[in-house]
Amino acid sequence: MSEYIAPLRDMQFVLQELAGLERVAELPGCEEATPDLVDAVLEEAARFATEILSPLNWPGDQEGARWHDKMVTMPAGFKEAYRMFTDGGWPALACEPEWGGQGLPKVVAAAVAEMWKSANHSFSLCPLLTAGAIEALVLTGSDQLKATYLEKMVSGQWSGTMNLTEPSAGSDLAAVRTRAEPQADGSYLIFGQKIFITYGEHDLTENIIHLVLARTPTAPEGVKGISLFVVPKFMVNDDGSLGDRNDAYCVSIEHKLGIHASPTAIMAFGDHRGAVGYLVGEENRGLEYMFIMMNAARFGVGLEGVAACERAYQRARDYARERVQCTDIGVRGGPKVAIIKHPDVRRMLMTMRSRAEATRALAYVVAAAHDTALRHPDVAERKRQQAFVDLMIPVVKGWSTESGVSIASIGVQVHGGMGYVEETGAAQHLRDAQISTIYEGTTGIQANDLIGRKMARENGATLKAVIEEMRALDADLAGREGGHLAAIRSRFRAGIDALAVAGEWLVTTYGVDVRAASAGAVPFLMLLGIVAGGWQMARAGLIAQAKIDAGDSDPFYAAKIITARFYADHVLSQAAGLASSITEGVEGVNALPEDLF
Amino acid sequence: MSEYIAPLRDMQFVLQELAGLERVAELPGCEEATPDLVDAVLEEAARFATEILSPLNWPGDQEGARWHDKMVTMPAGFKEAYRMFTDGGWPALACEPEWGGQGLPKVVAAAVAEMWKSANHSFSLCPLLTAGAIEALVLTGSDQLKATYLEKMVSGQWSGTMNLTEPSAGSDLAAVRTRAEPQADGSYLIFGQKIFITYGEHDLTENIIHLVLARTPTAPEGVKGISLFVVPKFMVNDDGSLGDRNDAYCVSIEHKLGIHASPTAIMAFGDHRGAVGYLVGEENRGLEYMFIMMNAARFGVGLEGVAACERAYQRARDYARERVQCTDIGVRGGPKVAIIKHPDVRRMLMTMRSRAEATRALAYVVAAAHDTALRHPDVAERKRQQAFVDLMIPVVKGWSTESGVSIASIGVQVHGGMGYVEETGAAQHLRDAQISTIYEGTTGIQANDLIGRKMARENGATLKAVIEEMRALDADLAGREGGHLAAIRSRFRAGIDALAVAGEWLVTTYGVDVRAASAGAVPFLMLLGIVAGGWQMARAGLIAQAKIDAGDSDPFYAAKIITARFYADHVLSQAAGLASSITEGVEGVNALPEDLF
Repeated sequence: MSEYIAPLRDMQFVLQELAGLERVAELPGCEEATPDLVDAVLEEAARFATEILSPLNWPGDQEGARWHDKMVTMPAGFKEAYRMFTDGGWPALACEPEWGGQGLPKVVAAAVAEMWKSANHSFSLCPLLTAGAIEALVLTGSDQLKATYLEKMVSGQWSGTMNLTEPSAGSDLAAVRTRAEPQADGSYLIFGQKIFITYGEHDLTENIIHLVLARTPTAPEGVKGISLFVVPKFMVNDDGSLGDRNDAYCVSIEHKLGIHASPTAIMAFGDHRGAVGYLVGEENRGLEYMFIMMNAARFGVGLEGVAACERAYQRARDYARERVQCTDIGVRGGPKVAIIKHPDVRRMLMTMRSRAEATRALAYVVAAAHDTALRHPDVAERKRQQAFVDLMIPVVKGWSTESGVSIASIGVQVHGGMGYVEETGAAQHLRDAQISTIYEGTTGIQANDLIGRKMARENGATLKAVIEEMRALDADLAGREGGHLAAIRSRFRAGIDALAVAGEWLVTTYGVDVRAASAGAVPFLMLLGIVAGGWQMARAGLIAQAKIDAGDSDPFYAAKIITARFYADHVLSQAAGLASSITEGVEGVNALPEDLF
Repeated sequence: MSEYIAPLRDMQFVLQELAGLERVAELPGCEEATPDLVDAVLEEAARFATEILSPLNWPGDQEGARWHDKMVTMPAGFKEAYRMFTDGGWPALACEPEWGGQGLPKVVAAAVAEMWKSANHSFSLCPLLTAGAIEALVLTGSDQLKATYLEKMVSGQWSGTMNLTEPSAGSDLAAVRTRAEPQADGSYLIFGQKIFITYGEHDLTENIIHLVLARTPTAPEGVKGISLFVVPKFMVNDDGSLGDRNDAYCVSIEHKLGIHASPTAIMAFGDHRGAVGYLVGEENRGLEYMFIMMNAARFGVGLEGVAACERAYQRARDYARERVQCTDIGVRGGPKVAIIKHPDVRRMLMTMRSRAEATRALAYVVAAAHDTALRHPDVAERKRQQAFVDLMIPVVKGWSTESGVSIASIGVQVHGGMGYVEETGAAQHLRDAQISTIYEGTTGIQANDLIGRKMARENGATLKAVIEEMRALDADLAGREGGHLAAIRSRFRAGIDALAVAGEWLVTTYGVDVRAASAGAVPFLMLLGIVAGGWQMARAGLIAQAKIDAGDSDPFYAAKIITARFYADHVLSQAAGLASSITEGVEGVNALPEDLF
């Protein structure tokens, strides 16, 4: 079975040429991110991904995480891999130096995280959730909470979880019912059940730090009455050693379509005497704090989409090079050829390749903007970048993960009948990719966030600014007529126009008829993803052409231009149809009476 | 877990209004297909599907078919269900009365088969393969072969298989290496290994009749040297009783993504003394005969796509009606509502519903054309209908099954996190649906068949005739301006135009640059599917409007018009983009040198 190889050349290109790593490295606190250091980090991560994580992916899927007596045993090899992972300092990569982190920019951490996700989606979820918990504690925890937990979470010695969902409160956090009763010593006792808790129980770390949403007795109804609590699996003594087992137990794990090696726990808090918890920040502001984790987690899940496209592409490409079947098309009686020569196999591979590159480019650009938003000395620039990040997070989440599913499905198809046989490995990528469109908010929820909070609330201001930037690039492309770039420009321009029309319609309609606007939410998220991806591919094509014109003979640049061309003709080509479905497709969505479904 | 309920109202509408069941019943040999009989058959089949097959679907998936000692044990309940299936006479539905069949038209059998597939994809494969084997024997077998095998296969007492694929001959049948050595008594001894043999071994029937492709010693190389043989699992004595075990054994079954209850066998022929086989028809004409089975099987697999859309839709709709989550959009502080009220959930359900209806309509119309092609007294009409069937079979196969996968994926998404949990059942539909895009020829192979054999070879004549028929309907729609039908007309006309341009380009290009044409083969298959589906939905909308205008108050008609409207705005809207990807997208597909992938 072929192992994952990190696409270092494309990652470096995107980091340097599209995401502006040099400018990121000029930000206060990012000075260590020199090109040499970043290259060394990426190469080391690539080696770890290929040699340690990738070989565990398939056996981990087959063995799965196993529950017994409220404990979870991880598949063979995961414990050793996790120890090597923490020994290598990987959990601390983008964390604050104050707590033992290495303080690298988020954009570098994004490239590294993509590798973990491509190599072993299930494994990567443990550090993903821990990173979210760290971020919430850094930003909102008391000094005592930080002193007690952060260092060991940054080192990876302890892991973290997010406990939001309850059986009747899935996407609707207003319905959270878990109770938190204040105790005389300032702590709380937590009572309630949480479901779908990723890595809620496992044997990789000696302690697990649960972040739990719950209501205090005096809390108002709805989302404004939710507080956030730290609930450790084992109590922590004053000297940092582990104390009693807390009353927080995993009562079962789910039997899922994929990510079998990632235990999805049903957690019971307080079934015996109450689970001891500590308030994070202030009461009733839990949802706000949780959104800190969720935005980071949504971006991280978006990267899973990128990673799924890349992994599925690599496996399909390797198979298409090896598998000999039929003669070259149009050649009768010739020799049998590898199927990569067949036009439709090429079309599938180009679809996969171009989607991996486009989703990667957009995700890293957003990550770099996030670094700038956090660290730029100019407050206006910080604000501008943050608005871009806020607009794009649901797109990175929704569009990349939907891409991951469709690309992994194409990957199965490239393998023909072998793709349907589990041992081939292509089917696992599809099964694993499917969860990314669901957790941390389904694509529909991302799209509602996009058109509501991120667009309508500000009258589409940030979207308009993005469209202006796109039009500026169109002007750059206008100077490069002829060949692939001219074709790319033509498709890109049509895409921008479609995006502008649909965006304008949505913002206008949202205030008048929110049901009508919402009917087009997901198509608009896809449209924005497609055009924003096309924007980055067009930028990449222009830069590649400039390198070639300057005499650079690296074939990477010619490949980049052809891939951008494919993306333009086969992906951007969908933009106008999507826009018209949004602006004219409301009646079809909303007219059917419920009882006639 | 909700059981499948056959969509009888829509099936009857499509049979009567779109597929012209009355005219089919006027064909010689179809006289028994009176409306009353057909309704009774459909109702009885619906009951069997809901009560017997559907409840076995999920346990069958979880238990799976199990191999041991070259035998396969089917999951609990399958044996009893199969006995009831044969007791009910279901295998014989569309078979020739001469061999015990009921001689019902193919279009009626299609509706019934759709039910088996929706209710239990794995179970339905046994009769599907048997029907293909029966068809090949009826058309090409000697009198003795017919007398020995047909009656027991038609009754379902014995099942049939198709043995094409070998490890190095997947889609490339020219590479078949299985040998057939002639014996003194006129029989042959077969030696070789076949893979991916659906129901190659099982315990539902007392005998299994394998149809096997192999080469005789004097056969020419390539596809012109392949012969077809009957190889029974147990030899048949002159009195029809079973004799010795033949040397045809299942050495293993595959561990697959889905259809776990359908055993996919690796068959070893002749490992011990040679497997006794009997030549079907003439030597070296095996591929031609196998194509008889394959066309029937391809249509049958296309129905699996219809069935997957319908089944996934039903489960998602039922869940969306039950699952209460969040307030109605735009209503603050209101009561929580069922998620079917949320616009994006409606959009997903309408996508699923409209795709089920469109793929069903097209498939049944093609089945009725097949009945006419076989039985119409006028030879010119037979030829015309056969050309339509030949053109559309790859579309029914490729487009319906790709629809099945994407619709089943949406079905998972409607369920949110619960969709990813296997017990919910939505994930099984996705896992099962995926195989339909692969077996009996991948979508890429269907598309090559479409643009090559079915279009370029006849200069696009049948496609042009179909487009003319579509334009005639556009003229009918022109008389019905206003409201939904006007919107449908506008989208349908744009779809026809896109289809005409892309079709013309493909036929012209095929002769000049087959690689360029092939790059657009799958997008064209999808385009033809989308527009042909829109054609049937537009026909349905017109008929529904006429019923309403005539005072019919059945709400089915209003729902049909809204569903057709949705399809127009959200599916037909993709046509222009697809056409431009075909005519302008060649370079992106074919330009990248292989070593740069």
